[in-house]
Amino acid sequence: MKQAIQPTKQTAIFMMGVSGVGKSTIGTLLAKQLEIPFFDGDDYHSEANISKMSKGDPLTDLDRHDWLHALNALATQQLKTNSCIIACSALKESYRTILETTIAASTKWIFLHGTFQQIKERIQHRNHHFMTSDLLQSQFDALEIPQNALQIDIHLSPKEMVTQIQKSLPLKTQFGLIGLGVMGKSLSRNLAQKGVRISIYNRHVPEVEEDIAINFKKEFKELASAQTFDALPAFVKSLETPRKIMLMVNSGPAIDAVIEDLLPSLSEGDSIIDGGNSNYNKTKERFDFLKSTGIHFIGAGVSGGEEGALKGPSIMPGGDAKAYQQVQPFLELIAAKDKNGIPCCNYIGSEGSGHFVKMIHNGIEYVEMQLLADVCTVLKAKGNTPDQIADILESWKPTTNSYLLEITITILRKKEGDDWLVNKIMDTAGNKGTGNWATIATAELGVPSTLIASALFARYTSFYKAERVAASKQFNSENISQPKITIDALHNAYQFARIINHYQGFKLIQEASERFKWDLNLSELARIWTNGCIIRSDYMIELVTIFKTTNNLLTHENTVQALKTRKSAIKKVVAECVLHELPIPSLSNAIHFFTNFITANSSANLIQAQRDYFGAHTYQRKEDATGQFYHTEWNLNEPKKPTEHGNTSN
Amino acid sequence: MKQAIQPTKQTAIFMMGVSGVGKSTIGTLLAKQLEIPFFDGDDYHSEANISKMSKGDPLTDLDRHDWLHALNALATQQLKTNSCIIACSALKESYRTILETTIAASTKWIFLHGTFQQIKERIQHRNHHFMTSDLLQSQFDALEIPQNALQIDIHLSPKEMVTQIQKSLPLKTQFGLIGLGVMGKSLSRNLAQKGVRISIYNRHVPEVEEDIAINFKKEFKELASAQTFDALPAFVKSLETPRKIMLMVNSGPAIDAVIEDLLPSLSEGDSIIDGGNSNYNKTKERFDFLKSTGIHFIGAGVSGGEEGALKGPSIMPGGDAKAYQQVQPFLELIAAKDKNGIPCCNYIGSEGSGHFVKMIHNGIEYVEMQLLADVCTVLKAKGNTPDQIADILESWKPTTNSYLLEITITILRKKEGDDWLVNKIMDTAGNKGTGNWATIATAELGVPSTLIASALFARYTSFYKAERVAASKQFNSENISQPKITIDALHNAYQFARIINHYQGFKLIQEASERFKWDLNLSELARIWTNGCIIRSDYMIELVTIFKTTNNLLTHENTVQALKTRKSAIKKVVAECVLHELPIPSLSNAIHFFTNFITANSSANLIQAQRDYFGAHTYQRKEDATGQFYHTEWNLNEPKKPTEHGNTSN
Repeated sequence: MKQAIQPTKQTAIFMMGVSGVGKSTIGTLLAKQLEIPFFDGDDYHSEANISKMSKGDPLTDLDRHDWLHALNALATQQLKTNSCIIACSALKESYRTILETTIAASTKWIFLHGTFQQIKERIQHRNHHFMTSDLLQSQFDALEIPQNALQIDIHLSPKEMVTQIQKSLPLKTQFGLIGLGVMGKSLSRNLAQKGVRISIYNRHVPEVEEDIAINFKKEFKELASAQTFDALPAFVKSLETPRKIMLMVNSGPAIDAVIEDLLPSLSEGDSIIDGGNSNYNKTKERFDFLKSTGIHFIGAGVSGGEEGALKGPSIMPGGDAKAYQQVQPFLELIAAKDKNGIPCCNYIGSEGSGHFVKMIHNGIEYVEMQLLADVCTVLKAKGNTPDQIADILESWKPTTNSYLLEITITILRKKEGDDWLVNKIMDTAGNKGTGNWATIATAELGVPSTLIASALFARYTSFYKAERVAASKQFNSENISQPKITIDALHNAYQFARIINHYQGFKLIQEASERFKWDLNLSELARIWTNGCIIRSDYMIELVTIFKTTNNLLTHENTVQALKTRKSAIKKVVAECVLHELPIPSLSNAIHFFTNFITANSSANLIQAQRDYFGAHTYQRKEDATGQFYHTEWNLNEPKKPTEHGNTSN
Repeated sequence: MKQAIQPTKQTAIFMMGVSGVGKSTIGTLLAKQLEIPFFDGDDYHSEANISKMSKGDPLTDLDRHDWLHALNALATQQLKTNSCIIACSALKESYRTILETTIAASTKWIFLHGTFQQIKERIQHRNHHFMTSDLLQSQFDALEIPQNALQIDIHLSPKEMVTQIQKSLPLKTQFGLIGLGVMGKSLSRNLAQKGVRISIYNRHVPEVEEDIAINFKKEFKELASAQTFDALPAFVKSLETPRKIMLMVNSGPAIDAVIEDLLPSLSEGDSIIDGGNSNYNKTKERFDFLKSTGIHFIGAGVSGGEEGALKGPSIMPGGDAKAYQQVQPFLELIAAKDKNGIPCCNYIGSEGSGHFVKMIHNGIEYVEMQLLADVCTVLKAKGNTPDQIADILESWKPTTNSYLLEITITILRKKEGDDWLVNKIMDTAGNKGTGNWATIATAELGVPSTLIASALFARYTSFYKAERVAASKQFNSENISQPKITIDALHNAYQFARIINHYQGFKLIQEASERFKWDLNLSELARIWTNGCIIRSDYMIELVTIFKTTNNLLTHENTVQALKTRKSAIKKVVAECVLHELPIPSLSNAIHFFTNFITANSSANLIQAQRDYFGAHTYQRKEDATGQFYHTEWNLNEPKKPTEHGNTSN
């Protein structure tokens, strides 16, 4: 990684020392290096002062007063927009106090010093200068050695002097992060712990969000060298170029607002990473828009929740492959590592593909969560307490472990007083939009990812709490016995449904990859999801291998075997649940989808006939391999009578 | 309805007769009335001719030759963009032949005639005119009475004359229709059969769509007075103002293209009706855009398929209520009539509400079709032939009739050779987007309309024909017995699922109505759907009454009773189908949704705990009615051991 040495947040650098010591020369060189303006203090002397000096008369403190205040005003003005270098002898402490009035925190003192003899020789080589030997001696007499200045010996070469000064300046930061919510804070700490110099920004909203960044920095020692901001231009200035800025703000219009505010401060070649759950279509729009301004845009899915973000999330960056190389070292540094130590982060594909796969990740997550809820519904109906359910799930770990299984066990065991905490939680499940979008994507792309929809709709249904309670009283009067479902059958049904869930999720990704020409690598995607993210599991590790040989999970021999041995179990579980009125939306849709999918000749022929009947939509025929379309006038020559052998009695 | 009398398609009206008969006076008045330009032929005489006439010398035929050709050129030029009136004595047949060269079909002759004495007196009252009495006589001598002209006697008042001329002109049409596909043709014939004067337009695409409108007109005698076009400006000109133009073109960009092409020819206050299946969000966008141009836009859902469009569709117009009044008489005229003779057409609400309800109509339709397909799947598995299935469905008519049930019976009975046609149809079901959008709307609005999604996904799954055939071979090896399902149970399950379908569909409409402040009337909507549309049914008639007292179908006593008595039947049917691997996606999702909905305490509490665990998303508590949000550090103080009474063995 490039280690640019540039001054970070706005600094007024005063080059001090007696006349002739080389303040202008070194100041000019340094300014060129740092790309900031240089001002020679002598240019700000009044006519009277200049005249006095040219006659060899030393200036009095009164002579200097207005001049020093003018230089302070110059520095103050410059600091509003930039760093600057000002050359000024500033021999006495009292002069320096004036120069840094109100800007002491942003002032850096560089003291160039040499012997009287060295400097006298230099002066003698100069022409057209108002300096005399006597005046030089008076300066040496007046000089009060500064305590807080960087001392630079003028026997060094100018290049060496500039390098030494540069090294003493605070470094520009390597990576910027905007938005200090749950995820933004965790990612910031993660970056800082890995030794990345970061700038962190949170907006200032009076009485709502005040001093967020600075207070956050105080809380964690790893943030000691982090630079904090609540103004965007200064934040941007603190970053080395090309800049890498990660947005961790709410998806939606907030993203566009931040981008709009950032743009005036950015330079061509800078990169913005949107690490939130943005809609992949929006990401493409932003990608295209920013491309036109010369700014790279990387839509990166980040999964792992609060803890993952801190300890190592799974990261799915999409966008321009070349731009990704700039941010790659940082993202790989903070990402989780897979079992071989390789980062759970890799370039996904162009446009919004990073956010697309993150959206499907969340869709799979919705289903994994709902399947565990379905399992709990059945186990609860069988009379188990949360602790007992946890024990059963614990026994599933050796064969079916996953992060979500583990946290479910922990959740079920959590007690509050005499009762389990889970029992006290309101059963209305929220959602943040990605499951919704995943369902929309499945509808738009024409892929039957039925489980994602089932899990989403289960959450929606949960929201009708009052209606459910009322309906329960109206309809649920029957006395229903316990379902006859063994733990083993339930375990098999759960495993069966998880396979269908992963099949459908990856199928949706595969279809999108073909539709949008993203050329996604399913095996690599599964690998990224083996650690750090919410859907990491032993099964995901298996998928890394499976997807190396096929993109169709359902026809792989492992899958065929796994489904075959578990089919009768899920059939029994679902049938029993239906009869006992147990809602298991994702378990049931798993077997329904599967049944549909293994039906060679479905009733869709009737649908086609109906569509042709009322809408003349035409249909194809089984025996016509050309795929030609036919239309029938269905209601002509309609048989007047029903046939005689109608099977209406059974 | 206003019966405007205006010239229709571009016409060159020649006002002829001897000088002094009043051609300029009447021509000018008429032109003002018709809002078309007037030209005085005398203004096109050469200097030489004028000089000759002012001396009292009659013009020779040679003198007239160039002049007549100039007037013909003038008329030809005008006809390119407009009708026009040209005053010209045109006394001889040979002159008139020149005047109408190549434009005879677009020429109308008005012959103003009076006695020599009448005209002479008029001339004597005029000043500054080159006409003399002698010249008048020469004109009377030369006059050849025209055969094809409308003769107007100048003893009438000018107003009477203008009125008489106007009456003789062809009428402008009352209603325009763009796009002659299946639905456009049927609606055109419907309008024409009801006596509406229509203009019909179809684009001209060389070698693909040529002379569509004119050939269509030739096919049906009710279209005898229809005016046909393949150029939009002429089509628009043919319509009386304010114009009513209905688009029956493919939804999507084609709509915007036609609107763009139409705009330059339209006038403020004209109305465009989009009768296609446009996305309701797009309809709102177009509504807003056209409002800014002064054009009304009405998004009207039209249901009924080819036959309904011809005999009377159900129409769901949405947009500006006042603009609707302009088109109301026409839409009501062609709409189906309910059992009380009231049109199945009424103003739905503002913005895209008309297209929204049509989209949900189609969603309900998808499910109604899939439920019948599900029923056929079961009956087929029980060993019935299509004829036998038709007979069973026939027996359901008295209690469960619907248009879709009726056509399904007809379809099942249709034979081709020895086999039933339905058996030969490829089981890959198409879709045109509305079911897709309805599923997206259900996801976006947060309403669990699970059945629409199930029917859509069933169609999507059907499309994987090759995969299904392959999977069938891999997985479907077991020998499965016939399902133990009685026809009665199946019938009850079907009725149960239809209630859930209508509940979910209307619920979605109700939620949209509240969200978008459309203030929709569910009972009136059900009434519009009792005839003409694809989902008309006896049940829909029942819903008209039910929705008069409540917007919540599920809590109405009829529904409660109907579901209670049929619940055990659908449970048995679905359980049996699951065990026998029969795909019945919509039947099964009906009972799953219901079970979910009547569960007072669902497993969504676990989902909330999981979300809070990994994402700090917080949760509410059952005992805290304030709805406050809580967060727990779940993995602190985790019990190290499982409890002793784990129920892991059963």
